[in-house]
Amino acid sequence: MSKRVVIGIDLGGTNIKVGLFDTELKLLGRKAAATDAASGPEHVIERIADTTREILAARKLDMRNVRAAGIGAPGPSNIKEGIIAFAPNMPGFENVPIKKMLAERLKVPVVFENDANAACWGEYVAGVGKGVSDMVLLTLGTGIGGGVVSNSRLLHGFDDAAAELGHTIIYPGGRQCGCGQRGCVEAYASANSTAARATEALREGRSSSLNAVLESRGAITSRDIYEHVAAGDELAREIADGTARALAILCINLLHTTGPELIAFAGGMIGAGDLLLDGVQRFFDELIWSSKKERVRLVQATLGESAGMVGAAALAVDMG
Amino acid sequence: MSKRVVIGIDLGGTNIKVGLFDTELKLLGRKAAATDAASGPEHVIERIADTTREILAARKLDMRNVRAAGIGAPGPSNIKEGIIAFAPNMPGFENVPIKKMLAERLKVPVVFENDANAACWGEYVAGVGKGVSDMVLLTLGTGIGGGVVSNSRLLHGFDDAAAELGHTIIYPGGRQCGCGQRGCVEAYASANSTAARATEALREGRSSSLNAVLESRGAITSRDIYEHVAAGDELAREIADGTARALAILCINLLHTTGPELIAFAGGMIGAGDLLLDGVQRFFDELIWSSKKERVRLVQATLGESAGMVGAAALAVDMG
Repeated sequence: MSKRVVIGIDLGGTNIKVGLFDTELKLLGRKAAATDAASGPEHVIERIADTTREILAARKLDMRNVRAAGIGAPGPSNIKEGIIAFAPNMPGFENVPIKKMLAERLKVPVVFENDANAACWGEYVAGVGKGVSDMVLLTLGTGIGGGVVSNSRLLHGFDDAAAELGHTIIYPGGRQCGCGQRGCVEAYASANSTAARATEALREGRSSSLNAVLESRGAITSRDIYEHVAAGDELAREIADGTARALAILCINLLHTTGPELIAFAGGMIGAGDLLLDGVQRFFDELIWSSKKERVRLVQATLGESAGMVGAAALAVDMG
Repeated sequence: MSKRVVIGIDLGGTNIKVGLFDTELKLLGRKAAATDAASGPEHVIERIADTTREILAARKLDMRNVRAAGIGAPGPSNIKEGIIAFAPNMPGFENVPIKKMLAERLKVPVVFENDANAACWGEYVAGVGKGVSDMVLLTLGTGIGGGVVSNSRLLHGFDDAAAELGHTIIYPGGRQCGCGQRGCVEAYASANSTAARATEALREGRSSSLNAVLESRGAITSRDIYEHVAAGDELAREIADGTARALAILCINLLHTTGPELIAFAGGMIGAGDLLLDGVQRFFDELIWSSKKERVRLVQATLGESAGMVGAAALAVDMG
């Protein structure tokens, strides 16, 4: 039987997504399973293997048809060795040699990448970055993650710690970030920080249509904020502008560091759509030096939640 | 005759430095000439050719022994095509296809790079970055230039505009930078900006031993400031701290973007030596997240003014 398919795996704290692709990255089948990380790495590996086998069986294929598998996983890791050092959302995952474990279980070559890089690679190969050589993916969720492709290669950096883009500092001495630094982009522009800034303003007595939300639900989300921007609330607009300005400064700094042709935005907050991106573009145009205003395209990512799975599969194809 | 030597050329607004190297990058001879840019590109090419021939003759060699030449040059440029778009310090250099002109004149293959990248490559191949795979070079002079090596390759970015590190923004809405932006690192930490901040403080009436310098010479330099720091002047220390803090934030942001193992400092201001670097390290340690304090080495570059010439020669060797 010919080895004509690859597997792309996106391991998250909640779900494992597994996709079956041909070597042109056409999706042949996909399935998600609960990660159940608390049951430990061995259990997670079994979940992945079972899920993979089910998808293959549905296409009348089996592991002998699989050329290679790619996996994207969270947490600081040794990418080359495929070891997850630790993963905040997967307790019990400490120094897990997941690449080796998975290769032994699936009996195919396995390539490992961190989740943000895998998603960036997916968008680069098959999404919004198709055809460019230099791009950045920013994932706006609870935190702000990212990946950088430079000259058609993912940046890893010494120690595999490149592209922690949410923790670049844009307001020195500013808001406390969960990472221990002050003034990180993430402390202003993640979904959580955006909601936190609004909540703080409300608690300081600012009048806003968001007060009713806070009172009735006890908390507000970044989605609430963008809904209230759309409805014309002034405080919501102010908070959304703060998020957009922080992201615009990050984009300018990325432009001056790795020189991307486009910067793509993904993650939960991108649900705000044009309201978010138009704001980032407005501040970008206002703050960038005059000679290069047009030099970077700020766009929405297009693969959505599949990006990591697609990127992992693409890395598996690249193994040759 | 065997083609056993390469030429490294560092073209600057004031001087042209030409070095003759063997293919192990051992320096065999060097010579500098005035650029005399006002006489135009053709004249500059002749200068380079004449200087090259003189160095070769002194070693009883000629152009037939030269395998290739590398040239580092200032200004925005098309690196692959070897075209200088314009160079602020070389009036009359607009869209000059210097790589092609030089190859036709010298009759050897020529590789082109911008000057900051060439210097970074020199330090990477033969200087302080020898043996690392990921580094940054920051050049602190009139402005702040830089180069980034990631996974053993120079970052160019789309449009060859990566590594404009002095124009990353660290104080949004802050000091006006010459580039049109506000709050750039360069607007705080270049030699000129460091001197300007001190001058402004003195003109606002701050008491300082620097007042005597300003009165007697009408201007102060960054060198004066570090001398007065060493002598215990409080304002000078405050200004130097501002420079160190800005550079530390840049280093943190670089760490979180390209993940270098070391960041090397070069340029005129590095004359301040430990006074400067110790300050950067102090702010870096204070501002970086706690888990990664030790992860980047902040060091002085070691090749001095030869870095660009060495880097250009190394690129010529790499042409094979």
